[in-house]
Amino acid sequence: MSHYQAPVQDMRFVLDEIVGLDEIAQLPGYEEATPDLVDAVLDEAARLSTEVLAPLNRVGDVEGCQLTAAGVRTPTGWKEAYRAFSAGGWIGLASPPKFGGQGLPQVLGAAVKEMSSAANLAFSVGTLLTMGAIEALLFCASDELKAIYLDKMVSGEWTGTMNLTEPQAGSDLALIRSRAEPQADGSYRIFGQKIFISYGDHDLADNIVHLVLARLPDAPAGVKGISLFLVPKFLVNGDGSLGARNDAYCVSLEHKLGIHGSPTCVMAYGDQGTFGGGAVGYLLGQPNRGLEYMFVMMNEARLGVGLQGVALGERAYQQARAYAGERQQGRDALSGEALVTLDRHPDIRRMLLSMKSRVEAARALAYYTAGLLDRAHTVDDPEQAKSYLDQAELLIPIVKGGATEMSVEVTSLGIQIHGGMGFIEETGAAQYWRDARITTIYEGTTGIQANDLVFRKLLRDRGACLKRIGTQIAATICGLDQSTPPLQAFGKKLQEAWTAWLTASDWLLGQAQVDPESVLIAAVPYLDLATAVTGGWMLGQSALAAALRLERGEGDPEFFRAKIVSACFYADQRLPLAVALAATVMAGATALSAPCPDGSPA
Amino acid sequence: MSHYQAPVQDMRFVLDEIVGLDEIAQLPGYEEATPDLVDAVLDEAARLSTEVLAPLNRVGDVEGCQLTAAGVRTPTGWKEAYRAFSAGGWIGLASPPKFGGQGLPQVLGAAVKEMSSAANLAFSVGTLLTMGAIEALLFCASDELKAIYLDKMVSGEWTGTMNLTEPQAGSDLALIRSRAEPQADGSYRIFGQKIFISYGDHDLADNIVHLVLARLPDAPAGVKGISLFLVPKFLVNGDGSLGARNDAYCVSLEHKLGIHGSPTCVMAYGDQGTFGGGAVGYLLGQPNRGLEYMFVMMNEARLGVGLQGVALGERAYQQARAYAGERQQGRDALSGEALVTLDRHPDIRRMLLSMKSRVEAARALAYYTAGLLDRAHTVDDPEQAKSYLDQAELLIPIVKGGATEMSVEVTSLGIQIHGGMGFIEETGAAQYWRDARITTIYEGTTGIQANDLVFRKLLRDRGACLKRIGTQIAATICGLDQSTPPLQAFGKKLQEAWTAWLTASDWLLGQAQVDPESVLIAAVPYLDLATAVTGGWMLGQSALAAALRLERGEGDPEFFRAKIVSACFYADQRLPLAVALAATVMAGATALSAPCPDGSPA
Repeated sequence: MSHYQAPVQDMRFVLDEIVGLDEIAQLPGYEEATPDLVDAVLDEAARLSTEVLAPLNRVGDVEGCQLTAAGVRTPTGWKEAYRAFSAGGWIGLASPPKFGGQGLPQVLGAAVKEMSSAANLAFSVGTLLTMGAIEALLFCASDELKAIYLDKMVSGEWTGTMNLTEPQAGSDLALIRSRAEPQADGSYRIFGQKIFISYGDHDLADNIVHLVLARLPDAPAGVKGISLFLVPKFLVNGDGSLGARNDAYCVSLEHKLGIHGSPTCVMAYGDQGTFGGGAVGYLLGQPNRGLEYMFVMMNEARLGVGLQGVALGERAYQQARAYAGERQQGRDALSGEALVTLDRHPDIRRMLLSMKSRVEAARALAYYTAGLLDRAHTVDDPEQAKSYLDQAELLIPIVKGGATEMSVEVTSLGIQIHGGMGFIEETGAAQYWRDARITTIYEGTTGIQANDLVFRKLLRDRGACLKRIGTQIAATICGLDQSTPPLQAFGKKLQEAWTAWLTASDWLLGQAQVDPESVLIAAVPYLDLATAVTGGWMLGQSALAAALRLERGEGDPEFFRAKIVSACFYADQRLPLAVALAATVMAGATALSAPCPDGSPA
Repeated sequence: MSHYQAPVQDMRFVLDEIVGLDEIAQLPGYEEATPDLVDAVLDEAARLSTEVLAPLNRVGDVEGCQLTAAGVRTPTGWKEAYRAFSAGGWIGLASPPKFGGQGLPQVLGAAVKEMSSAANLAFSVGTLLTMGAIEALLFCASDELKAIYLDKMVSGEWTGTMNLTEPQAGSDLALIRSRAEPQADGSYRIFGQKIFISYGDHDLADNIVHLVLARLPDAPAGVKGISLFLVPKFLVNGDGSLGARNDAYCVSLEHKLGIHGSPTCVMAYGDQGTFGGGAVGYLLGQPNRGLEYMFVMMNEARLGVGLQGVALGERAYQQARAYAGERQQGRDALSGEALVTLDRHPDIRRMLLSMKSRVEAARALAYYTAGLLDRAHTVDDPEQAKSYLDQAELLIPIVKGGATEMSVEVTSLGIQIHGGMGFIEETGAAQYWRDARITTIYEGTTGIQANDLVFRKLLRDRGACLKRIGTQIAATICGLDQSTPPLQAFGKKLQEAWTAWLTASDWLLGQAQVDPESVLIAAVPYLDLATAVTGGWMLGQSALAAALRLERGEGDPEFFRAKIVSACFYADQRLPLAVALAATVMAGATALSAPCPDGSPA
């Protein structure tokens, strides 16, 4: 196993050249994000990830978690790591100072999330959930609940969970059956079983704040009858100290393909009868609006999972690159030199560069999107804010779907580069691949991201927001056209790819009413198409920025040259897919409904 | 976990309509392969796979193998399964009757290999190795060694292994260091360590026949100084009974990502000093020709691994289809009907059909190639035989590389269709994906297959054999053109894809001397391109055959209609990739060597 080194140079490049962090640091509330502070944050997060979290990644994979009579026990060393993580203030990096947070831009948080996920995905899943729960409380908790819970969650003293799934209700939350009974004191009693609850129990913190979707007695059926409740593991006394153990227990742990260090719990609420039946809970916000609140958090949660994809891709790339630089095997096919390292073989270089360029494209898009959310949350002009939010919301399913699918493919290339050693668990390459496999599933499968992109983002405004993004892509193409010949060639390929995306979008807009089946069949290929093109757009911008720096003789020329190689390679290997995917989109459901030769329906 | 049902109907269809088994059954030696016998063989193999092997698949995954003082212990039930497998005569299905085999065509053996691999890959790996070792002995062993070993191996009483890899010699066998010292009695003493030896030790059979690559004292360096030795686990007495334990031991087992039930051994030869140093071994064939002998077997070994890819794809498809037909989740997006099964959702149908069509394409190509080998081995006319062999050899890297890469993607789709349940090991979907991951690595990685395709198959005869295959593809396109409109549309797409393949091939032929780096970088994309096009060719033939049967009102119309849907879907979803991949091939290594804007080399 290699040591993880956070790719701070590329992160900084993306923040400066793609995100425009200097502009974001001008926005109200973000004034503290000075270049020096940003450097300090990135360096310190890199240190923590490399020195504390990364060495525990395989420990977590091998040991997994244990369900004991005293609750869930996390792997060796995780408690200490969690203490370091929370003591460093990383949970509250982007939380409001009012509750003890540091109030820094989300985009900086994105870089930190990438690092912690790359170092140890199973560990960082728990911290991301706490961050999500904090967001939820900020959005919909009463001031009283905020006062009791938020400080302790922001400091990491207590952690948070999300309880959505039930055995019969997976992607379809309309089927949720957990119920909440109102009590005379204004609290509720929660009954029900939840599954797939990450960090539903653990030994890292003193208390766990469960956010639980359940139905009130008089709630309408379906998704409009679901409310959100706060259910603490331990009740909290008036003075903030911990009180009685609530009736909320982990009753079993799942045996999973990956992220073994992250306890995936079956949670039983109200089974013990300690409180006369039901777990004690508190309503968050208005009744029956639980799903709506969840969707507010969904943007950041999905962006967070997209970052996990970037993270695992980066980690796999680093390990594969290190191995390919050390392992000697075979003769140089060009020079004839005997016994060269793997990275002298063109096909190995192809795989490494494919990994690198796809990770860089996904990182740039994810950070760019996080920056749009920061802008949306802080700019004064509401119309401008809405425009930023719309763009971010169009890009989020592409980040989530695209970066996670990328991570499965890129971690697989990581195994391939190791040859037979890649199949041996001790090597570590296989763990990234196994861990990556959950990212295309949780927080909404790729199919759900694709439907979100097509129905909520493309069709709802009839392509208006896409065209706004298209204007920016056109500007990038224009910049490339005015650059050197290799970048002009890149521009031409990006133009073709963007035209393919636009054509496919127009086709979907035309079909939506006429042939919804075709639109539904086309959704995932359309998402793949959007991923290919937005990746090219990001790398086009990177290449232009790198070319400018090289021209000016600024910075690290080797790094900038590598950025250009990476971009041009992506143009050769990924951008041609856009035209093919557009053809697939526009084929729609024809094959499924083609009449058969004997005239009968297929 | 679903029950595996061997897809006998599709296998039979491919044998009849694509392979032309009736023609093969006319060839000398294959007269016994009558339609009735073929049915009986397929049905009996299906029964064994479903009832005996498949139920042990997860047992093997969970228990794995154990290295004990008495040697390697296989998982519970495997001994009994092995007894049933060998008693059924399955090891010797295609072996010569002279040594107790059934002498049936290899293509029938291919169908049986697919079934046993689908039912339980980790189990069947061992049987495939024995079949490979039998082939090797038939090819290069002395009559004396044949007389001692072959009958027992064909009956399955003894098993076989292949010992190639050493820690420093993976894909690069030139680096092999194991050595053989000649003895006065004509035998040898073998010294060395071999790694990644599947079934290097086990408790399934009485003896194990290791085929070991090693160097003679006076051997030249590199691949031309490697000889092949037979090293039995137990020496064999003059009367055929077992003698002393040889100095060949499994010293450790690997912890692998998949195929846990298959023991992957580190083998130590001659470490104990029982025989005064060295393990007792016997030279096979001529000195220094070991690698050549291995390459003779390579065709069938690689075809066998390709069939493993088909097998895992089929198994994953069956389980995903069953789950999608049972699990209720979500509303029908078209009719609005509440709570429908997963397979009513268009994106799930897209994934299922993508799995099905790619598996069918790969199966057809693999069986077709096996049929070419049967023809090559038996037709009288040597020129005709060479033509068949050349075609098979061109297709084998496409079968091996293409079907195994397909299996990684298709088993991943199988997980995706299960949603969160796919990530839970008890579901079983994850095992197929983990097991599939080795198939793109062993018996030559995908990169090695691609280099074989480009350098040994395309460039060596300057595209002559490809053009012979092209004539057949053109005939399929012609048939499609004269069919119904949906198949005409298919023909048009296949024509475009074939043109792309031909253009890319011509480009490679042109570059070979000028720019070998580009050719090397392009090899894997070229293999992917060949996979896409040959799959379309196979499904085009399937569609034509199905259309004809429908027209004539023969057989099962639902099955034939499904074949046409599958083909048309493939044309929409996979064939457009051909043009994109050709563009990638022809981009070559430009990106890697593009001059940077400041004029310096990249």
